[in-house]
Amino acid sequence: MDQSLSPDSMQSSAPVTGRDLRRIRANPDFWYPVAWSRELKPGKTIGTRYAGQPIALVRPREGGSVFALEDRCAHRQVPLSKGTVKGESVQCCYHGWAYGRSGRCIDVPYLGKGKLPNGVRTYPVREVDGLIFVFPGDPAKAETTPFPRLAEVANPAYKTRRFGQLVHCHYSFMHENLMDMNHQFMHMKQMGQMKPRFLGQERGPGLVEARYSFARTGGKQPIGEALIFGQKRDNSEKFAHRDVMTIRTTYPYQTLHIQTGDNAPVMDLWIAYVPQDEAELTNRVFGLLSIKRPGIPGILDLAWPFLTAFTERIFREDREIVELEQNAWYEQGGDRNQEIFPVICNLRELLVECGLPAGQDAPAPVARGASPA
Amino acid sequence: MDQSLSPDSMQSSAPVTGRDLRRIRANPDFWYPVAWSRELKPGKTIGTRYAGQPIALVRPREGGSVFALEDRCAHRQVPLSKGTVKGESVQCCYHGWAYGRSGRCIDVPYLGKGKLPNGVRTYPVREVDGLIFVFPGDPAKAETTPFPRLAEVANPAYKTRRFGQLVHCHYSFMHENLMDMNHQFMHMKQMGQMKPRFLGQERGPGLVEARYSFARTGGKQPIGEALIFGQKRDNSEKFAHRDVMTIRTTYPYQTLHIQTGDNAPVMDLWIAYVPQDEAELTNRVFGLLSIKRPGIPGILDLAWPFLTAFTERIFREDREIVELEQNAWYEQGGDRNQEIFPVICNLRELLVECGLPAGQDAPAPVARGASPA
Amino acid sequence: MDQSLSPDSMQSSAPVTGRDLRRIRANPDFWYPVAWSRELKPGKTIGTRYAGQPIALVRPREGGSVFALEDRCAHRQVPLSKGTVKGESVQCCYHGWAYGRSGRCIDVPYLGKGKLPNGVRTYPVREVDGLIFVFPGDPAKAETTPFPRLAEVANPAYKTRRFGQLVHCHYSFMHENLMDMNHQFMHMKQMGQMKPRFLGQERGPGLVEARYSFARTGGKQPIGEALIFGQKRDNSEKFAHRDVMTIRTTYPYQTLHIQTGDNAPVMDLWIAYVPQDEAELTNRVFGLLSIKRPGIPGILDLAWPFLTAFTERIFREDREIVELEQNAWYEQGGDRNQEIFPVICNLRELLVECGLPAGQDAPAPVARGASPA
Repeated sequence: MDQSLSPDSMQSSAPVTGRDLRRIRANPDFWYPVAWSRELKPGKTIGTRYAGQPIALVRPREGGSVFALEDRCAHRQVPLSKGTVKGESVQCCYHGWAYGRSGRCIDVPYLGKGKLPNGVRTYPVREVDGLIFVFPGDPAKAETTPFPRLAEVANPAYKTRRFGQLVHCHYSFMHENLMDMNHQFMHMKQMGQMKPRFLGQERGPGLVEARYSFARTGGKQPIGEALIFGQKRDNSEKFAHRDVMTIRTTYPYQTLHIQTGDNAPVMDLWIAYVPQDEAELTNRVFGLLSIKRPGIPGILDLAWPFLTAFTERIFREDREIVELEQNAWYEQGGDRNQEIFPVICNLRELLVECGLPAGQDAPAPVARGASPA
Repeated sequence: MDQSLSPDSMQSSAPVTGRDLRRIRANPDFWYPVAWSRELKPGKTIGTRYAGQPIALVRPREGGSVFALEDRCAHRQVPLSKGTVKGESVQCCYHGWAYGRSGRCIDVPYLGKGKLPNGVRTYPVREVDGLIFVFPGDPAKAETTPFPRLAEVANPAYKTRRFGQLVHCHYSFMHENLMDMNHQFMHMKQMGQMKPRFLGQERGPGLVEARYSFARTGGKQPIGEALIFGQKRDNSEKFAHRDVMTIRTTYPYQTLHIQTGDNAPVMDLWIAYVPQDEAELTNRVFGLLSIKRPGIPGILDLAWPFLTAFTERIFREDREIVELEQNAWYEQGGDRNQEIFPVICNLRELLVECGLPAGQDAPAPVARGASPA
Repeated sequence: MDQSLSPDSMQSSAPVTGRDLRRIRANPDFWYPVAWSRELKPGKTIGTRYAGQPIALVRPREGGSVFALEDRCAHRQVPLSKGTVKGESVQCCYHGWAYGRSGRCIDVPYLGKGKLPNGVRTYPVREVDGLIFVFPGDPAKAETTPFPRLAEVANPAYKTRRFGQLVHCHYSFMHENLMDMNHQFMHMKQMGQMKPRFLGQERGPGLVEARYSFARTGGKQPIGEALIFGQKRDNSEKFAHRDVMTIRTTYPYQTLHIQTGDNAPVMDLWIAYVPQDEAELTNRVFGLLSIKRPGIPGILDLAWPFLTAFTERIFREDREIVELEQNAWYEQGGDRNQEIFPVICNLRELLVECGLPAGQDAPAPVARGASPA
């Protein structure tokens, strides 16, 4: 990094971790992906999670869009996602209570003319570009909350890889990992020796951005990287630092673009980290990696398996290290990070500002009321 | 269910769960099965449990009946059931301390003329029809506490299947599962579509009873069921609702009979759920399923493997669902059931009345005193 | 045991366990082995533990001796032992921060002329006879703290077996197990019937010693034992009780010698139990078992595999029983031992006196200060 950090630019992470960053809950008033569209077949229901809340996604066999219910029968709290989809309703597998799209209980098979019992909570749902999103926070805010742009999934000039898995750490470690490109050092085996140069940062409402360029200082360019850039670069300084990498946390999502001058990005990554457990110390990653198709038709498709293996190796290294960070947090009983990189200090502030402190509750879920049969 | 539930008949489960039903401890002042006779060979000892108490069962090689000791050597608390049976005593595997049937320490191999140390607690034991029972509560009550009738084990007109396994839930979920026959819905794949009709209930001291009849509304009668009833039924209403199923919780046991008119039951099930851990959130099931032998000799024996597989599948489905109920309890930190079926509301009351609140201790176990050597 | 225990000699273990022995922490102001030399290749680093403290051992490729650092990068707390050794320093795998032998941070690759951040804690290290020791307590005491004699590792008249593994119990159970030879009873299958005779004990500062002799009262002498003693013994009383076994806890180590009269010991065992987790309820055993070479050259080497298998079986039985003791402690929420053997009562006192109560902290670790770059 050529922009030297002076002593004055060093920030202790203490002020931020007065509230331990790893106890900050993700803000539920955003659209979060909870499943890939391909996971949910017509006429089926599957169970997913947001921060400890079990959510049943239901896709009616014909017509209707996906809907989302609290994944617990109002009767005995067993998962509705173990049940059966009938038309626009789902019937619990245990005693057959049925719930409609609105969350209302619409049938108890052994109940005569009685008043039907209370139903279950629902979640606003959107299905876009092969991802199913829910809005786990205050439903009244769902409509007006901006929906993210999902890389270049819909753009035929790009080919997009969908990836993701469970990572056993707080989502904040993921943001820090991606934004601090000095960790390029860790991927040396995969990438060769790449020296990052920090070009600058932006800080706005709900946003931190970091810009880097890179120069290869040793090792061979890996084939995966060559494919992304569509041509082989040599190691001369002339070619170094030509491409700019822009990493942005636009709360709660993260993006990474690589582009040369004003050209369209050669790579456009969108990624979200969705808390799974109530303590939010495990997250599920949903990533969309769009690569611009090079001039020669078909070459990207041909190379796709190599690119997939390459990115999987990178991602495995990242997963290992953030889980080791989380382990240290468990052992030390808190965050002891000594952060000196200003853009990461800003990112940490952002995550605290936009998230919720551990004690503070999300808007109380409201179950739909009982209705006369 | 034809007897409709009117709004007035609906009961909230809240009054009962003011004391959380899943924290109610089983009452130890009853006879509980802890092992099958076949598990304990002559001259051997095995370790069992009741609600967190480790219990060593000892069967002397010759003559004497089974006896039961606290399964911890008084010296260093290692299990006596790892030891060796010698005559009417068991010798600890570690340093060789020996205990008699009374729980007294009768030998420390390396102790000279000294006073022998304190012994270990004992439990009253009865071995009946292939089951070994202990009385984990106040030993003074053991003699006068009624001993259960064990299905038709001793009746040659019946063949009895012994079954059971560990189920990771509070015993109360087991009682509710069996008594609420509306969960027949869940076994549709195994049983075909069976519509239960609730015929009525009884509530007495230590007892709740529910009666049902059934009509097949679709699907084929499974072979297992045909075997139990000794004949094939057709689906016409004429034959429907002829057999009456009576399910009873006679605290702490449960029974299920199927009979036609005043005939002897075609099926007689006795079942007990024995808490294993101290919190009583795991139970071991001991079941005796007696099936009346049909007119043709040998046919039941021939069909036994099919019947076994059929009941195992049913039982597996039940185990899965009660463990899901228990999981919801863990996640929600308590019982949130919204029970509307009056007989189950009564059953829940019974289990609270007859059990012990979480804080209340069982009669303190008294170790047998030291005796002069 | 021929020296009878009279009632007066019986001691309750209660006074000692007023402070629960299993909560007493090992005293860190001693030299503890944390790895075998062969585990740490030149130019490599490995991660080890002492009582919850992660320790990175580093062996430079050329020249320098092993050094030990807190196994957490000062930056983001990931293990330094995942990093790379460069000369006399280790570089963190994540963002490349580097630390020298003194624990100082000597490089942050992307830091310009700024003040280098704080470094990490170090531990005094000694490497002797194939074992790497650290001093986890107050470093100022390291030089003057006596270093143990390691069996007969350096003596060519002996052949030494190195052994050890993780045992899931408090280290105190290990001391008691070895010193109470009445547990010979447990090894009957391996050793045949051996009757121990307690010959006496010593109690000094930091030391408890027990002496035994043995007579074979039944069974065949196992080959492993014959090898150790270099000759076959018969069972006559003439030969019984000729060899004296001396077991000593010289805090925090333990030794066991077998010798006849004033001859050099035929067997010399040195063993250390190193707490792994913070609660010290798991320990790693490092044992050195030196066997005197018998007159016929080569015979001991030939027999070595048998001896190894024999001692492994003994050790497996011991591990099982001490882990059962630990399990009882977990279940009962504390130590309920009823110890009657005076030498074990003395040993328990010693371990309490020399150790640290659970609440009391070890000398606070001091991280090396930042230094100008």
